[in-house]
Amino acid sequence: MTTTGKRIQANREAFRCLGESTPVLTDVLPAGEAVPGFTPDTILTSGPTMPWSSYVGGQRSAVIGAALFEGLAGDESDADAKLASGKIILRGCQELKCVGSLAGVYSASMPVFVVKNQACGNVGYCNIYEGTNHRRLNYGVYDDGVRERLRYINDIVAPVLGEAVRATGGIPLKPIMTSALHMGDDLHSRNTAASLLFSRELFPALIALSATNRSGVEKLVRAMTEDHYFFLRLSMAAAKSTADSINGIEGSSVVSAMAFNCKGFSIKVAGLGEQWFTGPHATVDAVLFAGHTKDEISWMGGESPITETVGLGGFAQAAAFALQKYQGGSPEGMVSRNLSLYDITVGEHPDFRIPFLKYRGTPTGIDIFKVLDTGILPVMNIGVAGRDGGQIGAGTVQAPIECFQIAAEAYKKRYGGF
Amino acid sequence: MTTTGKRIQANREAFRCLGESTPVLTDVLPAGEAVPGFTPDTILTSGPTMPWSSYVGGQRSAVIGAALFEGLAGDESDADAKLASGKIILRGCQELKCVGSLAGVYSASMPVFVVKNQACGNVGYCNIYEGTNHRRLNYGVYDDGVRERLRYINDIVAPVLGEAVRATGGIPLKPIMTSALHMGDDLHSRNTAASLLFSRELFPALIALSATNRSGVEKLVRAMTEDHYFFLRLSMAAAKSTADSINGIEGSSVVSAMAFNCKGFSIKVAGLGEQWFTGPHATVDAVLFAGHTKDEISWMGGESPITETVGLGGFAQAAAFALQKYQGGSPEGMVSRNLSLYDITVGEHPDFRIPFLKYRGTPTGIDIFKVLDTGILPVMNIGVAGRDGGQIGAGTVQAPIECFQIAAEAYKKRYGGF
Repeated sequence: MTTTGKRIQANREAFRCLGESTPVLTDVLPAGEAVPGFTPDTILTSGPTMPWSSYVGGQRSAVIGAALFEGLAGDESDADAKLASGKIILRGCQELKCVGSLAGVYSASMPVFVVKNQACGNVGYCNIYEGTNHRRLNYGVYDDGVRERLRYINDIVAPVLGEAVRATGGIPLKPIMTSALHMGDDLHSRNTAASLLFSRELFPALIALSATNRSGVEKLVRAMTEDHYFFLRLSMAAAKSTADSINGIEGSSVVSAMAFNCKGFSIKVAGLGEQWFTGPHATVDAVLFAGHTKDEISWMGGESPITETVGLGGFAQAAAFALQKYQGGSPEGMVSRNLSLYDITVGEHPDFRIPFLKYRGTPTGIDIFKVLDTGILPVMNIGVAGRDGGQIGAGTVQAPIECFQIAAEAYKKRYGGF
Repeated sequence: MTTTGKRIQANREAFRCLGESTPVLTDVLPAGEAVPGFTPDTILTSGPTMPWSSYVGGQRSAVIGAALFEGLAGDESDADAKLASGKIILRGCQELKCVGSLAGVYSASMPVFVVKNQACGNVGYCNIYEGTNHRRLNYGVYDDGVRERLRYINDIVAPVLGEAVRATGGIPLKPIMTSALHMGDDLHSRNTAASLLFSRELFPALIALSATNRSGVEKLVRAMTEDHYFFLRLSMAAAKSTADSINGIEGSSVVSAMAFNCKGFSIKVAGLGEQWFTGPHATVDAVLFAGHTKDEISWMGGESPITETVGLGGFAQAAAFALQKYQGGSPEGMVSRNLSLYDITVGEHPDFRIPFLKYRGTPTGIDIFKVLDTGILPVMNIGVAGRDGGQIGAGTVQAPIECFQIAAEAYKKRYGGF
């Protein structure tokens, strides 16, 4: 078989894995307990691991905030010194099967969703949404309010949520995601329906729990239902456990992760191991919240494009016309952009389907060579962070061509035949 | 001012009322307690009131079933005799501010949603969905299973639901309906999102209630969430309280109700009092459940087109592309059909908006003269009943032109000037 033939076969195998994955939420536990390798002095952040001196702006602030929150340092300069010396261990989330939203910081006490891909046996993790306040640690802010809200999640929300999830015996996420795509969600920037569907699955267990802990259940219900974003972290954990199932498929040129950090945008490729291929920042097409301007837009990381990696988010935007108000664009633009992504993917997802496209499956499995051949770039629906921290809007970005070019060079070097 | 000028002004007033209506669910009570004029020996059914001898097929079976269920007759022939003699009083639902789904039978013990239009002060009612089983009294079936399911609603579901609703102090339905249109519902044949959103509003009260009646709450939650159709009856009651707000607007040619019974299709007009204008049956474009054929399709009534009367259902079909699977059609067809309805309506709803149409308000306020001028007929999304009872599918129908012609004659006779 030719190299190209082998690659096509490997990519079909990757596509099959992505489609057959069955993510199930099995638990909610502190990262230090749930995630293998997560030591008490570990902090995770979005993107490929870099030396501490490379982190700037909001992502740097977020890491320092996590160190203070976890009690790993007494003040900012202490945190800075310990991060520089390696006394506090800073790693990219995905090394530990985690994914981070925006700055994506995790410390050991922060609870994570434990999502098992039952078809494939691997596990993915994501920590929990901080709430509706635009000032959040994962948007580079750390102050008394942020600390208080993080503690509330650690101490009040997560323990009850974990107990309820364990009582259900595990909540299959794919049926929720499949239905949510028929209810206006893209499962990246819009999770309105999925959050409600998830609540419904949990409700019988919550009624049972309320007999012994009514106040805790009431607080959890408020946290789960006050906002449309609650399910995003579940979508991300589900996507991570799905995307990781194609890691190491020999010869595959399908993208297995996409992530921002403060320095650029990076991808991983199924057949190229754990290496990241990094390009510059993308330009963003955004709608900003009232009172904010374009020059405030700041890059502080983000691994939520793991959802696009598995056929959701920008790859399901024609399922979510309601996103117009939140992130701009037009229905016609969303449809044509969604359709163009079939040209850079291996196939149509067997379960994630878009009603407006006559229930066509979402374009799934980004092939780096199709991206290079067509010049069509993956589109992502993202939240936008501001220079001074906090979320200031939402929009779409296109991945930079450079990371695909570098990945293709690495692929040719390893597999030859071009 | 010319007659036409007065009519245009009256229709603007009707449109304003439809848009400004604010339906709020205030209670759930047995019809005999809640509905003024509902005596213990009253039965309601869909469409204009007719002599008992005019009711045929499934609608006749449903009325007899309701008489037996209520204990108003010992057997079918007893019921027949009492209905013929007027000992059992049979009336069209809408005479008592109620609306009926399909055959639409109500008896005094059946619980109803009490929905107050707070902006206008009037009240609308609808009884409760019988559940997922295709064999239902409102589809013309009465047997042990149907009776058992109706009793379950009377005795288990409704009392707990009523208690929870009263504990909330009333649940505003318009915000739920507005959001549901952004989540793939048309609020007639698809109520998937609205049912979940309604459950969310009720959760806190249900958790509180579960302290004293956990089993009842669990059963209610199951009834509310096992199916996507639960909210339809709330959408209908909300639509009824909205449509009734335009009754009696002098000079208005806007449709204030549309309904089927076993004999035909009828409309009411805001400026023409309580008179119904009746045409023949429509032809239906339907998708049937497996094992059923077109010749089984049977007309046994239906007042759910009250939703179309206020700008929902077929008038919001471009919000609900997921309906393709359930009732057929294509996304393009849904869009062009939805767009055509702007030509027969007074305006665009200020709150009910369709994301795919760039958040344009739904076409609202059907003007009988615009229907006659353009020949464009109102389109409705409906459930389809079978000859032998039960639901056998779903589809779309167009109202017959004749009822608009007859109504226009009556309008000209009353108001002159043409």
